[in-house]
Amino acid sequence: MAVFPPTLDRLVQILSRLPGIGRKSATRIALKLMSSSKADCAELARAIVEAREKTLKCSQCGALTEVDPCRICTDPRRDRSVVCVVERPSDVIAFERTSRFRGRYHVLGGLLSPLDGIGPEDLRITSLAKRACTPEVQEIILALNPTAEGEATSLYIAKLLSDSSVRVSKLASGIPVGGDLDLADDLTLGTALEERREL
Amino acid sequence: MAVFPPTLDRLVQILSRLPGIGRKSATRIALKLMSSSKADCAELARAIVEAREKTLKCSQCGALTEVDPCRICTDPRRDRSVVCVVERPSDVIAFERTSRFRGRYHVLGGLLSPLDGIGPEDLRITSLAKRACTPEVQEIILALNPTAEGEATSLYIAKLLSDSSVRVSKLASGIPVGGDLDLADDLTLGTALEERREL
Repeated sequence: MAVFPPTLDRLVQILSRLPGIGRKSATRIALKLMSSSKADCAELARAIVEAREKTLKCSQCGALTEVDPCRICTDPRRDRSVVCVVERPSDVIAFERTSRFRGRYHVLGGLLSPLDGIGPEDLRITSLAKRACTPEVQEIILALNPTAEGEATSLYIAKLLSDSSVRVSKLASGIPVGGDLDLADDLTLGTALEERREL
Repeated sequence: MAVFPPTLDRLVQILSRLPGIGRKSATRIALKLMSSSKADCAELARAIVEAREKTLKCSQCGALTEVDPCRICTDPRRDRSVVCVVERPSDVIAFERTSRFRGRYHVLGGLLSPLDGIGPEDLRITSLAKRACTPEVQEIILALNPTAEGEATSLYIAKLLSDSSVRVSKLASGIPVGGDLDLADDLTLGTALEERREL
């Protein structure tokens, strides 16, 4: 027997499609919304539609923005000689939070994954190659996750750019700052040892 | 520096108000929505507004419904002599899932909590007393959480109804089915022992 009114049941179903939201959390959220004011519900609904309508991908770097090109691409204070290549728009946000990178970004929109049928043509790799060839760009930093797909994608891009004069680097691997040697896996510890730096 | 476009930032803020959703989950959900189709976003927005518009509280039992009185209150197959008193609409759903209760419900909408300023007049207690006085009702089952507030509310209602001819019962306390004696807390184990049943 369906225990929920039909519209509520539908809301729970749609909410459970969101990442990290199971049936139980969806029910909890839906019931909370039912006890909120109609104005609050309308506000949430409007915020969803509005954000989706206004947010687009920057035609230059692929990051989420409301103006095209995005504020980072057009910011005259940013270093135009360095481009940081990331997988997703959320990675741009992660780097911006650090305030340690003053160059520009290039969002691939995914990683190479032959098993899932994702090839170079499905990612923003052609436009990256074009950007790398402009004289102002001197370094490409590959900042992809250190997973099998991430490493394969990094290698693919490095090979693609090997003929150009641009410098290609990738993020350091090692022990996380504040981390514990005891808890580091063998691969990470091994890499940290191999790529040790002189003090 | 704000790293998100303003409308997206607003969406994250509003999503973080939902129960169980922190800033990180809200960001994840918002980014997922940005990569979903506009139609999907509109569907979610519509589902929220529609559920909130159509869902109301049953004037008899206080459960969430689209028709008033709700389907449970008007179902002729339900036992009209037993009323199960619960705190929230979600508790009705929990009982319905068990398929073990064939009576009707009464949702209080909260528990007595003098510290939070919640008194009897803030809950649906007067209407419960009225229902308890109708001749068809013979038993009131108090199914409130076994917390301090739940027990206090149960006692208050039991006292309120002590002059009427209605029988007042409450849920059994004890070891959860499939539970482990080792893991039960002292209070639960003690209660289970005290309220043991003959086989």
